[in-house]
Amino acid sequence: MRVVTFGEIMLRLQPEDHLRLVQCDRLEATFGGAEANVAVSLANFGVDAAFVSKLPAHEVGQSAVNALRRYGVDTSFIVRGGERVGIYFSEKGASQRPGKVIYDRKASSVAEAVSVDFDWDAIFEGADWFHFTGITPALSPSLADIVIKAAKAAKSKGLTVSCDLNYRKKLWSKEEARIVMGEVCKYVDICIANEEDAGDVFGIKSEGSDVENGQLNAEGYIEVARRLAERFGFMAVAITMRESLSASDNRWGAMLYTADGAEFSRKYSVHIVDRVGGGDSFAAGLIYAMGSGYTAHDAVEFATAASCLKHSVEGDFNLVSLDEVKALAAGNAGGRVQR
Amino acid sequence: MRVVTFGEIMLRLQPEDHLRLVQCDRLEATFGGAEANVAVSLANFGVDAAFVSKLPAHEVGQSAVNALRRYGVDTSFIVRGGERVGIYFSEKGASQRPGKVIYDRKASSVAEAVSVDFDWDAIFEGADWFHFTGITPALSPSLADIVIKAAKAAKSKGLTVSCDLNYRKKLWSKEEARIVMGEVCKYVDICIANEEDAGDVFGIKSEGSDVENGQLNAEGYIEVARRLAERFGFMAVAITMRESLSASDNRWGAMLYTADGAEFSRKYSVHIVDRVGGGDSFAAGLIYAMGSGYTAHDAVEFATAASCLKHSVEGDFNLVSLDEVKALAAGNAGGRVQR
Amino acid sequence: MRVVTFGEIMLRLQPEDHLRLVQCDRLEATFGGAEANVAVSLANFGVDAAFVSKLPAHEVGQSAVNALRRYGVDTSFIVRGGERVGIYFSEKGASQRPGKVIYDRKASSVAEAVSVDFDWDAIFEGADWFHFTGITPALSPSLADIVIKAAKAAKSKGLTVSCDLNYRKKLWSKEEARIVMGEVCKYVDICIANEEDAGDVFGIKSEGSDVENGQLNAEGYIEVARRLAERFGFMAVAITMRESLSASDNRWGAMLYTADGAEFSRKYSVHIVDRVGGGDSFAAGLIYAMGSGYTAHDAVEFATAASCLKHSVEGDFNLVSLDEVKALAAGNAGGRVQR
Amino acid sequence: MRVVTFGEIMLRLQPEDHLRLVQCDRLEATFGGAEANVAVSLANFGVDAAFVSKLPAHEVGQSAVNALRRYGVDTSFIVRGGERVGIYFSEKGASQRPGKVIYDRKASSVAEAVSVDFDWDAIFEGADWFHFTGITPALSPSLADIVIKAAKAAKSKGLTVSCDLNYRKKLWSKEEARIVMGEVCKYVDICIANEEDAGDVFGIKSEGSDVENGQLNAEGYIEVARRLAERFGFMAVAITMRESLSASDNRWGAMLYTADGAEFSRKYSVHIVDRVGGGDSFAAGLIYAMGSGYTAHDAVEFATAASCLKHSVEGDFNLVSLDEVKALAAGNAGGRVQR
Amino acid sequence: MRVVTFGEIMLRLQPEDHLRLVQCDRLEATFGGAEANVAVSLANFGVDAAFVSKLPAHEVGQSAVNALRRYGVDTSFIVRGGERVGIYFSEKGASQRPGKVIYDRKASSVAEAVSVDFDWDAIFEGADWFHFTGITPALSPSLADIVIKAAKAAKSKGLTVSCDLNYRKKLWSKEEARIVMGEVCKYVDICIANEEDAGDVFGIKSEGSDVENGQLNAEGYIEVARRLAERFGFMAVAITMRESLSASDNRWGAMLYTADGAEFSRKYSVHIVDRVGGGDSFAAGLIYAMGSGYTAHDAVEFATAASCLKHSVEGDFNLVSLDEVKALAAGNAGGRVQR
Amino acid sequence: MRVVTFGEIMLRLQPEDHLRLVQCDRLEATFGGAEANVAVSLANFGVDAAFVSKLPAHEVGQSAVNALRRYGVDTSFIVRGGERVGIYFSEKGASQRPGKVIYDRKASSVAEAVSVDFDWDAIFEGADWFHFTGITPALSPSLADIVIKAAKAAKSKGLTVSCDLNYRKKLWSKEEARIVMGEVCKYVDICIANEEDAGDVFGIKSEGSDVENGQLNAEGYIEVARRLAERFGFMAVAITMRESLSASDNRWGAMLYTADGAEFSRKYSVHIVDRVGGGDSFAAGLIYAMGSGYTAHDAVEFATAASCLKHSVEGDFNLVSLDEVKALAAGNAGGRVQR
Repeated sequence: MRVVTFGEIMLRLQPEDHLRLVQCDRLEATFGGAEANVAVSLANFGVDAAFVSKLPAHEVGQSAVNALRRYGVDTSFIVRGGERVGIYFSEKGASQRPGKVIYDRKASSVAEAVSVDFDWDAIFEGADWFHFTGITPALSPSLADIVIKAAKAAKSKGLTVSCDLNYRKKLWSKEEARIVMGEVCKYVDICIANEEDAGDVFGIKSEGSDVENGQLNAEGYIEVARRLAERFGFMAVAITMRESLSASDNRWGAMLYTADGAEFSRKYSVHIVDRVGGGDSFAAGLIYAMGSGYTAHDAVEFATAASCLKHSVEGDFNLVSLDEVKALAAGNAGGRVQR
Repeated sequence: MRVVTFGEIMLRLQPEDHLRLVQCDRLEATFGGAEANVAVSLANFGVDAAFVSKLPAHEVGQSAVNALRRYGVDTSFIVRGGERVGIYFSEKGASQRPGKVIYDRKASSVAEAVSVDFDWDAIFEGADWFHFTGITPALSPSLADIVIKAAKAAKSKGLTVSCDLNYRKKLWSKEEARIVMGEVCKYVDICIANEEDAGDVFGIKSEGSDVENGQLNAEGYIEVARRLAERFGFMAVAITMRESLSASDNRWGAMLYTADGAEFSRKYSVHIVDRVGGGDSFAAGLIYAMGSGYTAHDAVEFATAASCLKHSVEGDFNLVSLDEVKALAAGNAGGRVQR
Repeated sequence: MRVVTFGEIMLRLQPEDHLRLVQCDRLEATFGGAEANVAVSLANFGVDAAFVSKLPAHEVGQSAVNALRRYGVDTSFIVRGGERVGIYFSEKGASQRPGKVIYDRKASSVAEAVSVDFDWDAIFEGADWFHFTGITPALSPSLADIVIKAAKAAKSKGLTVSCDLNYRKKLWSKEEARIVMGEVCKYVDICIANEEDAGDVFGIKSEGSDVENGQLNAEGYIEVARRLAERFGFMAVAITMRESLSASDNRWGAMLYTADGAEFSRKYSVHIVDRVGGGDSFAAGLIYAMGSGYTAHDAVEFATAASCLKHSVEGDFNLVSLDEVKALAAGNAGGRVQR
Repeated sequence: MRVVTFGEIMLRLQPEDHLRLVQCDRLEATFGGAEANVAVSLANFGVDAAFVSKLPAHEVGQSAVNALRRYGVDTSFIVRGGERVGIYFSEKGASQRPGKVIYDRKASSVAEAVSVDFDWDAIFEGADWFHFTGITPALSPSLADIVIKAAKAAKSKGLTVSCDLNYRKKLWSKEEARIVMGEVCKYVDICIANEEDAGDVFGIKSEGSDVENGQLNAEGYIEVARRLAERFGFMAVAITMRESLSASDNRWGAMLYTADGAEFSRKYSVHIVDRVGGGDSFAAGLIYAMGSGYTAHDAVEFATAASCLKHSVEGDFNLVSLDEVKALAAGNAGGRVQR
Repeated sequence: MRVVTFGEIMLRLQPEDHLRLVQCDRLEATFGGAEANVAVSLANFGVDAAFVSKLPAHEVGQSAVNALRRYGVDTSFIVRGGERVGIYFSEKGASQRPGKVIYDRKASSVAEAVSVDFDWDAIFEGADWFHFTGITPALSPSLADIVIKAAKAAKSKGLTVSCDLNYRKKLWSKEEARIVMGEVCKYVDICIANEEDAGDVFGIKSEGSDVENGQLNAEGYIEVARRLAERFGFMAVAITMRESLSASDNRWGAMLYTADGAEFSRKYSVHIVDRVGGGDSFAAGLIYAMGSGYTAHDAVEFATAASCLKHSVEGDFNLVSLDEVKALAAGNAGGRVQR
Repeated sequence: MRVVTFGEIMLRLQPEDHLRLVQCDRLEATFGGAEANVAVSLANFGVDAAFVSKLPAHEVGQSAVNALRRYGVDTSFIVRGGERVGIYFSEKGASQRPGKVIYDRKASSVAEAVSVDFDWDAIFEGADWFHFTGITPALSPSLADIVIKAAKAAKSKGLTVSCDLNYRKKLWSKEEARIVMGEVCKYVDICIANEEDAGDVFGIKSEGSDVENGQLNAEGYIEVARRLAERFGFMAVAITMRESLSASDNRWGAMLYTADGAEFSRKYSVHIVDRVGGGDSFAAGLIYAMGSGYTAHDAVEFATAASCLKHSVEGDFNLVSLDEVKALAAGNAGGRVQR
């Protein structure tokens, strides 16, 4: 299976351990971004994964390329040009103190990319799957057009198209999101969302949940999924459900809705190492599982196990192997040392 | 509001992460001390806060000054002279292993300060509040005299005077503390104590609590506060209550007793990053809230939320903003990433 | 009391914090190994402890010697020669992600040691106790012979001989272990095992436990101990019991079986800093306690408290003092800061 | 003496030691910028120094403010607003490999500042000296206007105005620089330049020098200074002269030209720790010395000694004391340990 | 141009900065090895470079693969299997203290590789150049056979074959080297050696040099090259010449001998950051230059400039770009900051 | 040979790399002190070396003991008690910026030691040599008495007694030093001094040297040594001579004066990693060489080579082996990598 993802990869600057930005004089410098994270996770599962983007020709841009190559992602369709790598500053939360993200991604090379930068015919040559998230079209009107064009091209070439709604209020308004994502979703087969996205983007909400304080009405999400599927004709809708007990401890599970009904994964109580990229690791798990012909039940368990493990891994990337995910999905959750 | 605090700021030397002193070859070098911590916390809330002390003229003394300036504390009344910066070695505890503090603070510049080092008329010019803790008079007989003199001057100039009892058995005996603090408290308006201080210093104890193992009889503390208020005529008595489940997990709450009765804060289950300075961050929160005219209920919630957050911040200083405390005091405790 | 332990000390290479091997470019370089860990722990308790092994003459071998000397272990019987220091790569687990150990210890100096390298008469001169684990004879047939010879010599000289079964499936098969350990155990007075060892090595299992998921039938272990004691004539059998809730949180306790019956320790809920060496720290605690004439009840509480604390200490070595263990064994488990 | 400087302070991100950007995963995060560097250096000399700029209200902006406060700079005229802190990535050079700087400073808060952000009447209240460099007007046309306005205001209020030409070819063309700086220089009393600036900005070059390979014709610079002074009526022109033997070793000296002729400093052979900010530390030294009434000879020796020391200090800021500069200016260059 | 290199990539463990192995508790963990270094350097120049080897399937083996992928090397012909990654411990030298290397590479996966592991027909498909060094055949008799087979296959397919003699006395005797390398060299077009290799392997020495103390008789090397070329029919012989003034400062140059005579590069005085891999970076530069049709003069200048820069880069890999090498080869050696 | 040294071991706190104290938030925490350094160096040469001192019973005191044990020093005569470990803060110098030491050693356990703490009969049992420096008696009047007593006891028991004058102006005045050292030297056989000590302590100066700027009149030191030997009857006088070109580069050599005349070592140009402990490493080298019966010529070459190497080693301790010193003393100064 060859999977193409498209979006932005950013330089992630984070103080060590639980330090706050105002007290540190060193920053961990890694790279991440929703679609890049998916590509890395798939490459770690042995999938032929390509990430498409635009990055400046200088050393910081090169470092972003290198971060992807290191984990086996095909970077040959990354266009080099423009002036800057998008940046996000990140602070880890702890206990009652929330994590914090400060974006400094305006005018990045990919946000200023233009349609001719990407030759989708060449890019989709030999590909089976195209994945992107709602962040990419939110970066600029030009990117919104490019995403629509890409999704349309993928669909017409017979690729499976998946989209994680991934609504970010700092990037665009709900109104802007609704219009663009409404158009994008016409070409989408599989829709992924977290417990808030569907409400934010399409006004489709689960009753009886209080997201901010971690009370989720899991059952209510079936209705959300059903309505999403109906509106856009999605083949499947996956919803991740996070109960945020604190910044250190969450409960994490997911639901996969298909024509055959809803399958809920088991729920994990996770003690968090790094929760950024949790949703992306779920998407990667789902793509792997559905692309490998798993049943809905097995697919949601695999994807949830993959993303459960992500919470124990530092950085945006889900650096776990296929065997590790399979072992957890099979119920091996006690965390005994492997030696 | 301008708040003046007076005491010692020490060099804090701590192994990284959970390393023990005997196994490390690098030490994190930060600064802290009860009253300095209060000043920094207030400055972070936007209050005009000054810290008064004495520090040697060399680079280590300068680094202590710089640590305070960095966070906006007014250091213009810090006297430079004497020979050493007090030091404390600190090991983080974990699970059943307690944290450990080794003091090396004898003969520090401030412990050897003399009365003429401080011109309280000048220092209190334009100030609204004076705060100190029971650690300062414990450092030397000379400092005990200076504190009494300062508290008296503050009181006579109409400043609100607050004192955190902060009994440290390694600095003086209970008998010494009782005599000096008994004199000091004559000039105090607001008394702050933890679950043990009142018993250690004044022999006023809460029945039915087992502090060492984290069982606290919250109600019993009302009686402690009432008796303290009666004996010294305090306007308010605040008591913090820590239930120490382990070095990694505590429960944390507080009570504020005034003429109108006792207000208890909500209780937080905290997963600890660094618990040193927890009491100081409570004092700062209380000063902010009472100085801003909060009700007793709102004040104890604000102060407790501020100190709850401190447990998630590395170092002595409570590096959180007013908005962050307000959000938690308003009930937003789920720790979701802010982006 | 003078205790001699014999085995391998390895270079332990571990990424910082919770990083995975594939994402790090620095490794913490410490040393450890079952019997070395026991020696260090005993030296920390003030016992005269010697560690016997073979290490190459170069700087990495010297660093291993230095690591032991640093904590007061007698290294004068370590033979210098051969070509390599055994290595193990270690990743810390977190939450549902298990820790991982990759051994690179083949052809180490000690694995290739020969009988004449060790003069047991000289080594046991003045010693009271000999301790080793099932790892040492598993390293090579030559070492299996040497261990048998050493145990026999110790026994004949009147030393107490203790052995931790410590079965490692990557080092030898169950069949090999059964044959060798069956011979070794003839000279053993005190046998230590974890919840799986007796089953793996001698086919003696506790019914009703599911080790992988942390459900242990504590009572069933009495039967295991009784059968072990009967088969080999052990004076005492100690079994540690770990319930692995996750890689971050375990429950930990132990049982000590003697002719007078079984004594169970209290159980600790531990939030894990580093669980490697947990069993070794138990063995050291047991040797200390039994060598000091503790009752079975006090001995198992002391050993369990010692090993509980180990889980809060980074590295293989249990860097805690006698006073710290005694305080916890006495019930002081709240982890309050000591200052 | 109160000195006001105006410009941009950037987040400086640099790999540790001599690592290159493409091989590191951590970055030292400090702050710097030409005029901020001057302010810090002056504050370290005990001068009342204020830095004026604009920075976003978030934590990264706050960290920039804190970096200045830490060293005693008055930050009360820094406007908070806009969206980003300018960034520069920096690699240290070594031997034949040049250091490298990648700017990511477009659209920073100060580059997008507008005239009403700064109230020069209030800012110059009580000030004696105004300093800026040619970088500030290069950041945006709006800033060029603001700088002209500020310089004019300073001049009219009787402040001494100094300007370091500091031409940066990545920020603007030589033509743009000539026009703007030509206007700015009308209000300047003291002009500072390195061995290339006068040529780049005003086409006034020293014959017989090969800057790229470190051959400087020191005498030829007298003519450059004379022509600059004549064209703009400068009271003094200072020129720093760097002979770049390699990225590790430079020779460093300066000339100060006044109506009384040219004074050359002694030349230092410097083994470089960090050469960024070398020119700024010279400017600060010159302002200190000239503001303190030093003779031209003493002033150029003091300024050159200050900047010589800068090359031994990590980061943009020249963290040396007045005593340290005086000792070197007095000829004490052997670097013996002070104990 | 597609270049294939074949050999071992090792885990390189080195204390930070100038620390010695016996005093450190952390090690920098990077990867390197003669032929891997050449491949990385070529990939950095934009060449299609593949590295062929064998590595274990576990995470340490994966990290080695990732290190190569990160810099764009084709790893698709690396066989996964065997048990261990070769290791070398390295200490940086300084001043009069030499650097030190401790090999722990016995029984590595590639040393135990067998002939059927590598399908040279497939590997050389589309390749233009094959490079290896004298280290690879020294690792095991099996590898010696494989190297001969590979060189023969490459030669017969019309690839240019280059070999760096790279004699390592810890791996084999001079006699073993002479026999094997004598056979290997039959298939070699371009021979690379340092100032000692030809003497060690083939007994062909330069008169009048004292290598240990850095006195080299450059002219004498022409004779060495001539004799090598005659004996084996080499098209070209390149000899690097290091004058080791101390571990911190070397002089570095090279000679390229062809049928047209000898061309000497300029000599560089290098202040050393890391000299390991210096020879490999020369080989890569030479392959690039000769493969690009440079004249002998330009080729030796390019290769020497490339390797001069390597001395300023941490780690085995020469992380410099084509433009950087060209700039130095063009004479730009002053190391001025590029901004 | 068994050597006993007596003095203080301090916690050495130093910023990483070339950072200054005012800009760092981590400190390297190692241990050192003149006589401890000598003991470690001797232990590294394989000598049975004991260090005698007094250290507090807490973890920081234990860490000091461990630092010595790690390198094989006999610590069994270190008395545990008192309150503090002496501390010194250290900044590395660079280029024209001098290194800096801030002592915080007052009231350390050893400075407050009393005569009964040390049983010299037991301590000198089996010893051949006693070494101390002029720092120890400078720490307190009590220590001055103890040193005299110890030297006297050593002398009477037939040990060779060596003393490094090591004058420290921050510890005592020249007058105090003259009186005490004059008494001490009555029992000394071998006197060691640097280029200033004899002048500072006994007013015996070398004409024609300018120490501050690194111009030394080596010949003039013969006269100094002759006069010292005559006044106190020293068997030998060794003088180290440092020419301080800068904080980064020194020239280093020594002279050994005996009844047979003066022997000068070769001079080394050292590029400095850490020069603290340079004199102590010379003393250790001299003790080793003279204790091993070297000729005066060989002894001064060995001692100078040992101390030359120390300048390349981080920390106070000279972590080099006998073989390394011998190789340099034999003239192998090119610093080529040993592999």
